Amino acid sequence: MSILVVGSVALDSVETPFGEAERVLGGSATFFSAAASLFAPVRVVGVIGDDYPVDRLDFLRARGVDLDGIEKAEGESFFWSGRYHYDLNSRDTLETRLGVFADFRPRIPEHFRDSPVVFLGNIDPELQLDVLRQVDSPRLVAADTMNFWIESKRAELLRVLEHVDVLLLNDSEVRELADTPSLLDAARWVMDRGPRYVVVKKGEHGAVLYARDWMFFAPGYPLERVFDPTGAGDAFAGGFLGALAAEGAHEGEAHEALRRAIIYGSATGSFAVEDFSVDRFRTLELGEVERRVAEFRKMTTFEHELTAATVEGA
Amino acid sequence: MSILVVGSVALDSVETPFGEAERVLGGSATFFSAAASLFAPVRVVGVIGDDYPVDRLDFLRARGVDLDGIEKAEGESFFWSGRYHYDLNSRDTLETRLGVFADFRPRIPEHFRDSPVVFLGNIDPELQLDVLRQVDSPRLVAADTMNFWIESKRAELLRVLEHVDVLLLNDSEVRELADTPSLLDAARWVMDRGPRYVVVKKGEHGAVLYARDWMFFAPGYPLERVFDPTGAGDAFAGGFLGALAAEGAHEGEAHEALRRAIIYGSATGSFAVEDFSVDRFRTLELGEVERRVAEFRKMTTFEHELTAATVEGA
Repeated sequence: MSILVVGSVALDSVETPFGEAERVLGGSATFFSAAASLFAPVRVVGVIGDDYPVDRLDFLRARGVDLDGIEKAEGESFFWSGRYHYDLNSRDTLETRLGVFADFRPRIPEHFRDSPVVFLGNIDPELQLDVLRQVDSPRLVAADTMNFWIESKRAELLRVLEHVDVLLLNDSEVRELADTPSLLDAARWVMDRGPRYVVVKKGEHGAVLYARDWMFFAPGYPLERVFDPTGAGDAFAGGFLGALAAEGAHEGEAHEALRRAIIYGSATGSFAVEDFSVDRFRTLELGEVERRVAEFRKMTTFEHELTAATVEGA
Repeated sequence: MSILVVGSVALDSVETPFGEAERVLGGSATFFSAAASLFAPVRVVGVIGDDYPVDRLDFLRARGVDLDGIEKAEGESFFWSGRYHYDLNSRDTLETRLGVFADFRPRIPEHFRDSPVVFLGNIDPELQLDVLRQVDSPRLVAADTMNFWIESKRAELLRVLEHVDVLLLNDSEVRELADTPSLLDAARWVMDRGPRYVVVKKGEHGAVLYARDWMFFAPGYPLERVFDPTGAGDAFAGGFLGALAAEGAHEGEAHEALRRAIIYGSATGSFAVEDFSVDRFRTLELGEVERRVAEFRKMTTFEHELTAATVEGA
């Protein structure tokens, strides 16, 4: 089951305590595709400038990613540079140059319009709405957003939510969107506005899936070394939707498939941070993700409860 | 299997966004006992001043808590007052008056010395060592500590660690103790100094148990309303050690018992924050904890992995 992703295709310059990378592949659509293509065919819509090293995207093509929707425009590609702090949980943005992304108007190629799964990366909510007008009737629409849009395009974002099945965002973002410190209340606020599911990403603390009457927690995978956190959230989304698409995103066993997908998202996202850019995905195989999923199971499963008898005998 | 706890028995004045409580029962030994006594007999050693409303501890006695080790000294009881911020994740200490606690020298009553499980609450590491000299040979020793001791009595704290099986502390504390941002590295650093297990408490993000070659994650229980977070960590410790004591703290199925105990600790701790002081424990029954444990299971269990066949058929 194919996945359409619309988002940024960028060049990043990143400094971490472990090294530096200059003008490497970045952007939400890039990280998403690298991750999701482990599981399902992916179709990308985005824009690059005439300075983009297009051949470096070849490894995505080799993984079955259809890049026909990447438009090449005159000018500079979206560029972001940032520096991570010692504990890697926070970072400073040094520079953001939108370049050709400033005038980006997504055009969904004819042969992408029947995509059953759609991921609206973290872009202007008006563009997200524009994408939804161009696709047929996807079985599952997921979207990401960020504080910038919550503050500057709130009305448009709320219109997007009406058409979204799964909203993915960070804990600070969902708190700001719903204006409440309680994640539970915030998730319910979102579900009252369209989405059936809210996935809250909490970085090293893992992720939570909220549904109307159940929820599911995944811890953060305990890594020996976090090398570069850039793109972890988009790789999480790629693993999550990839796993759902691989299973057919069917409604029948939705609960189980969604729970499993959160774990696949966590496992896939945990690989993103092990190297700069999307480099870890150049060699990553599904078997490695599967092994990490099995580890997640060991780290969260517990056997039966204390029996009253045991306790009374204490 | 009885549990000996040594810690503070205090009076707290607390302000939260939901109300105020003046001079109510507080202190690590109080919260620990209220929680652990759901599971096993508890013996308390501490000190109170002549201003302490002793009859308010009667509900602990009714739950099988032996208060023979609470010494009454001339002067004021340990008093703490604090104000929680809007999101309840942070607080300001308004006042701390040690009172009789400043000269506290734990004296373990003769009939407490055979306690098979010992919990050293968050007190001066020199006093923790003093307690260990007075007990026979406990099967399980657990200890808590805090930044204040990590900074001011580091050498003494390291001596305590040599005798401790389980160290419980917050994520910021273990990072400071081991001087590393990685929780995994920090836990290993601690295990190299004595403890076989490190339990890292992460507030709303749950708790992690680290052992030499495995680990276990529990999410924070998703509460509708957090009323007063005071004492949650000590109630967690009480539920954790209580569950272990109820099962006999046996080595045979140590892995399983420890995993289960982390969930029991999380479930028990989650009740502490539902009311001021230890008030929620006045009526709490084991069955309510058991139901929350069952909910934890639903929130973390996922069925089998994606099969390669499923993925190839995508």
